[in-house]
Amino acid sequence: MPGRKPIKVALLGCGTVGTEVVRLLTDQAADLTARVGAPVELAGIAVRKPNKHREVPAELLTTDVDALVESDVDVVVEVVGGIEPARTWLLKALKAGKSVVTANKALLAEHSGELFEAADAAGADLYFEAAVAGAIPLLRPLRESLAGDRITRVMGIVNGTTNFILSGMDSTGAGYAETLEEATRLGYAEADPTADVDGFDAASKAAILASLAFHSRVTAADVHREGIAGVSAADIAAAKGLGRTVKLLAICERVTDNGTDSISVRVHPAMIPRSHPLAGVNGAFNAVFVEADAAGEMMFYGKGAGGAPTASAVLGDLVAVARNKVVSGRGPRESAYAALPVRPMGHASTKYHISLDVADKPGVLSQVAAVFAEHDVSIAAVRQEGRVDDASLVIVTHAATDAALRSTVDKIGGLPVVREVVSVMRVEGEES
Amino acid sequence: MPGRKPIKVALLGCGTVGTEVVRLLTDQAADLTARVGAPVELAGIAVRKPNKHREVPAELLTTDVDALVESDVDVVVEVVGGIEPARTWLLKALKAGKSVVTANKALLAEHSGELFEAADAAGADLYFEAAVAGAIPLLRPLRESLAGDRITRVMGIVNGTTNFILSGMDSTGAGYAETLEEATRLGYAEADPTADVDGFDAASKAAILASLAFHSRVTAADVHREGIAGVSAADIAAAKGLGRTVKLLAICERVTDNGTDSISVRVHPAMIPRSHPLAGVNGAFNAVFVEADAAGEMMFYGKGAGGAPTASAVLGDLVAVARNKVVSGRGPRESAYAALPVRPMGHASTKYHISLDVADKPGVLSQVAAVFAEHDVSIAAVRQEGRVDDASLVIVTHAATDAALRSTVDKIGGLPVVREVVSVMRVEGEES
Repeated sequence: MPGRKPIKVALLGCGTVGTEVVRLLTDQAADLTARVGAPVELAGIAVRKPNKHREVPAELLTTDVDALVESDVDVVVEVVGGIEPARTWLLKALKAGKSVVTANKALLAEHSGELFEAADAAGADLYFEAAVAGAIPLLRPLRESLAGDRITRVMGIVNGTTNFILSGMDSTGAGYAETLEEATRLGYAEADPTADVDGFDAASKAAILASLAFHSRVTAADVHREGIAGVSAADIAAAKGLGRTVKLLAICERVTDNGTDSISVRVHPAMIPRSHPLAGVNGAFNAVFVEADAAGEMMFYGKGAGGAPTASAVLGDLVAVARNKVVSGRGPRESAYAALPVRPMGHASTKYHISLDVADKPGVLSQVAAVFAEHDVSIAAVRQEGRVDDASLVIVTHAATDAALRSTVDKIGGLPVVREVVSVMRVEGEES
Repeated sequence: MPGRKPIKVALLGCGTVGTEVVRLLTDQAADLTARVGAPVELAGIAVRKPNKHREVPAELLTTDVDALVESDVDVVVEVVGGIEPARTWLLKALKAGKSVVTANKALLAEHSGELFEAADAAGADLYFEAAVAGAIPLLRPLRESLAGDRITRVMGIVNGTTNFILSGMDSTGAGYAETLEEATRLGYAEADPTADVDGFDAASKAAILASLAFHSRVTAADVHREGIAGVSAADIAAAKGLGRTVKLLAICERVTDNGTDSISVRVHPAMIPRSHPLAGVNGAFNAVFVEADAAGEMMFYGKGAGGAPTASAVLGDLVAVARNKVVSGRGPRESAYAALPVRPMGHASTKYHISLDVADKPGVLSQVAAVFAEHDVSIAAVRQEGRVDDASLVIVTHAATDAALRSTVDKIGGLPVVREVVSVMRVEGEES
């Protein structure tokens, strides 16, 4: 399209993802021009140490982020990560009417409201497909394809590191510490794995998914978060014995109580049946299950991280934003009109799997069962197996409030006939 | 949003899908208004026999399609199906600047070029998510999320009827005719099942997928099409013996030969490994596997048909189109700039599984193998099993051109030592 004014892009950050963005922008320049209706031109790349980036054109590198953002660029692409200074840069860009494409889940999970308001005031676009589940087109379907439906549940594996570790524990029977070490050695876990193994990364993604699915502002602080450090080889073995496997799940649910809707949003390990579509998602892959009133069940599966997959998502957004510039259009804005409240975890409805070592004498089951009854928790299945001198007792509950289930477990742990609470884990993905 | 002028919608057709569209528009009116930024108002429903539609408001029904399309509506939603008169109606709507949402795969697979041109000339939108894979958000990801990537392959199960029949044959061992009868009885196959079982429906969808994935105009006539009527219990048994299952696949491939790209697009039954993600897609579900250079492998899974799922996809498009009206924006236009040629089926690269009944005497394998060598087809695996008086010989080839494989099979069928060609089927979904 000769004569069409190019869409000028500022890239903030040039790590694994940024380098891939530069490569795709260069390799696919002709295709992108045809798809956008105008050339897409990289105007500058902001980095901290220009001499460390020999793989990108030196003349584009700058350390002056503010000058780059304030220059005549049309779009700012941010792949730096972290809340500050990314927040300040992107607010500046949006206020100046520049559209923003970002892969920054932490920032979106904290400050999406502020960013959307700035975008809206200036008529700019804010896209962030790469922030959740890497290359898997997931946010656009939630924001747009399902915009005419009522989403009831989003449940997914959105963190590759923890999925790699849990898949490994499941296949080798090894413990958590040992498997984490292996994951670190292979480069699947970072030197400081906290953000992944403690569920912070997944919680940010859960907040973003819940916001979009339920048209409400949900931040990372609203998300109940439990990591995988407490998952033991015994938990995995217990799951196996029941035809289940353990996954770290991000769960966003619409809960309707007496006609009033609220949201439960949480990240925790859970047993799911091996027949569930998410059970087969192994290693560094991500997958997200979505349920909507009219559409029914859907699953989205693909690579959740990595330079090239994440860059693919960034480029898809960049094409959308650039097309909007060309036709003077606008992408979808924030949709938070429903403003549903987030319920505390204690009020969430869950099911527990509890595995106990108990004394092998008469009356044990009745004592344990009495505690469940007392807390109004109904039992779905029991398996008791005698051993030489003690017995193992496995109980799976029906759905109850998480608070009732926790109190039940606490009280059972204190019963004299209970030698050890071997494993306590939530159960998901089953018909109630 | 009080005071905002409503977006007026004309609905053409009120069968299973149309009725659900009306229901969702009514039930979710408040949500839709909030999501769109203006009320979405049903202005009229065109049907042939108004007295047969007691489930929708009588005052909206009309038999005069032209008057409805020519009235002051903003969007025309078409769920009638078939090429004419839908084509004439939608061209008229688009030419008058009205945006169109359609679920009509046959029409899109034949006339998308003409429709897009009319939309473009008038600045109107053309959306058709519901035309392929029902409720699964698939076209929007292809058109938008992956717009910055290079898609290399789309392979999917896009017809529920044939998948129901093949799943049934696989689980019961019954033959095709018997299983089709069962599917008809249960309502999974229509009285005249031709469009499904002969692959016409899947071929229309393949054409649409190939057009979007490869930025080229591909019509149903370009698609090589084989249905499932020739799939025998012997084929299914042969597949099972090799840890495979048989699926009707729609396959769209980018083929690069000496730096020049072309497209292979085809619908045919094929064996896939039971470990492949598509192998677990049973019954009336659809799933589509997409491979792109940067994003890697992705899968989209969900309900492929039915009133509510299809209506969900229609509503998602309607919200997008209505939002575009509100912000004076535009959705993505036709992207056919690449104009890649479609290669004839004979030039497609495929692998065959061939099962033969042969005489049990020395030299049989060498005679058969010689025919493969003669056609330059290399053999990946052979399994020979002697029986009382004859033997079974199973051969799986490496990839070769379909023409070479066909000639090989023809010639082998004529060898005196070959008593019967028991099963010939393509093999997909394996590493080459």
